[in-house]
Amino acid sequence: MIIQKEKKKRIVCIGGGTGTFVTLKGLKAYNQHLAAIVSMSDSGGSNKRIRDEFGLLPTSDLRQCLVALSDENGGVGILRKLFMYRFEKGEGISGMTFGNLFMAALTDIMGSQKDAFEQTSKILRIKGSVVPVSYTDTNLVATYEDGSVEREEHFIDEPRHDGTLKITDIALQPEAIANPKAIEEILKADLIVLGPGDLFTSIVPNLIIKEVKDALHATKAKIVYILNLMTKYGQTYNFTALDHLKTFEQYIGPCIDSVIVNTSPIPTYALDVYAKYNEYPVIDDLNNQQTYTVIRSDLISDHIIEKSNTDTLVRSLIRHDSDKLASVLIHCLEDTTL
Amino acid sequence: MIIQKEKKKRIVCIGGGTGTFVTLKGLKAYNQHLAAIVSMSDSGGSNKRIRDEFGLLPTSDLRQCLVALSDENGGVGILRKLFMYRFEKGEGISGMTFGNLFMAALTDIMGSQKDAFEQTSKILRIKGSVVPVSYTDTNLVATYEDGSVEREEHFIDEPRHDGTLKITDIALQPEAIANPKAIEEILKADLIVLGPGDLFTSIVPNLIIKEVKDALHATKAKIVYILNLMTKYGQTYNFTALDHLKTFEQYIGPCIDSVIVNTSPIPTYALDVYAKYNEYPVIDDLNNQQTYTVIRSDLISDHIIEKSNTDTLVRSLIRHDSDKLASVLIHCLEDTTL
Repeated sequence: MIIQKEKKKRIVCIGGGTGTFVTLKGLKAYNQHLAAIVSMSDSGGSNKRIRDEFGLLPTSDLRQCLVALSDENGGVGILRKLFMYRFEKGEGISGMTFGNLFMAALTDIMGSQKDAFEQTSKILRIKGSVVPVSYTDTNLVATYEDGSVEREEHFIDEPRHDGTLKITDIALQPEAIANPKAIEEILKADLIVLGPGDLFTSIVPNLIIKEVKDALHATKAKIVYILNLMTKYGQTYNFTALDHLKTFEQYIGPCIDSVIVNTSPIPTYALDVYAKYNEYPVIDDLNNQQTYTVIRSDLISDHIIEKSNTDTLVRSLIRHDSDKLASVLIHCLEDTTL
Repeated sequence: MIIQKEKKKRIVCIGGGTGTFVTLKGLKAYNQHLAAIVSMSDSGGSNKRIRDEFGLLPTSDLRQCLVALSDENGGVGILRKLFMYRFEKGEGISGMTFGNLFMAALTDIMGSQKDAFEQTSKILRIKGSVVPVSYTDTNLVATYEDGSVEREEHFIDEPRHDGTLKITDIALQPEAIANPKAIEEILKADLIVLGPGDLFTSIVPNLIIKEVKDALHATKAKIVYILNLMTKYGQTYNFTALDHLKTFEQYIGPCIDSVIVNTSPIPTYALDVYAKYNEYPVIDDLNNQQTYTVIRSDLISDHIIEKSNTDTLVRSLIRHDSDKLASVLIHCLEDTTL
């Protein structure tokens, strides 16, 4: 009698920020092959110093994904905590994350940032793989509807101009060359998950790399997009669900198969805080279209994010729930009709 | 048939600096129980920042001993390297050692520096134990023959005054309370090793703690002193071997059983460099005394220390050889006539 071992499915999450962290954390429980493809154009905070003073590529998003996929048992628990730790003391050190300094030191010891990432993955005993989308030293450049231009991600994230202005074009300067490992993961994937996360600074920067775009069209994987809960002032002000999807079409053409949409109302206390920042729930206007399969479900986390010693923005009061998201994604992977 | 397992002997090295690192590294091969008791009054460089900006006890000497005793196999090799790494880039970060930042972050996560040390020992898989001599936040105070006083170790190490002046008194302010674990190690030891290392800033600061001094008199362990190769300007200018031993007598009375003395000549190129700093080979004047057993041997390392990314002073051109030292110490432990 031959016992057939069920083959692991391959799930690839593309993004980089907290949204990807949340998604990976939930999916980790399902024992499938997981990969995170991470944008490499961040330039804020600890990343800015890593780039400017150490001459390295940004590591914060990688660090978050490494932590999400690290084995929580087997003695690496404390290293995981250290990796998320942000120094609050020390002149010139306060504000830096331990994980970024760890990777900077390791890069110097090992001679290349690529080797340092791989070594860090081993030390944190990653279940799956964390793949930088590119090793090109590049910056994000946004053009707005009034013709103005912002260079570097942190200025797009925290705009210096009127945040209601629409971004008409987003590009990488210089153009990035995709990491072949990222392309391989996309081509071999069964399910590709975009988002949740900042549309123009976390998700799209991965997709506008030519080889990535081509691979998304070539792959047989189902491609799903997890719609953000809230709009983002300066990026997606007043965007509906369809506006988000049109943005993807603008940059990569028709690629997305399904959209995962939260149905639970956002708590009033959170709405009040977000409103102060001109940020509002994303309106679901996906009823009258046939392009995308829409999967609606309660996806909000019951945990209130009060304060965090991570890269989380203070206003990330509400989040997707890791377990609820993962459950929908696994359903999506198994159900061939979706 | 009962197979008797030979009981491990207990060797305790007291000191803290590079000399203790070298000794521990050699002894590690002999599979005995090893403990390092480490002075906690350092206040220079990376330690100064750890103390001033993080409000923590100094960790550089502990860090060196942890690295010396860490298991070089089993995947901790890269962590060991990281622990010795000193940042050369980053405003406010350059000059800091990774290991000190590691312990600062861990202290914040775990809530106490004691717990952080113990956790670090586990992570680095220490063979033996590294024991801070005290957890008192204290500083070294030196009084000189002209009545002048220097506070804080780094001013004693790199004196601002005439370096030929003799230190007439050395004390800790405030008085330190010994770590009970250090006392326990001393009382249970079979062999206690003092030095090599800076007499007034690495070795004596441990011994002047009352409970340590008492334990050295109470223990049945053989106590040996490894004589320094060179005098140190500002501390032991023109000191002979007997001058070193008289210093111990001044602070702890008659305690030392044996003295280990190098017999190999110091290479000329090194003598020239040291002479520029007013530092000279320690003269062996131990022939006409009966107080101490003298063990003479070739103890110099053939490796030239050119440049080091550790806490080593640039002028540490020559060192004791780890293996040669360890071999003599093990002989000393086994030979009851010495």
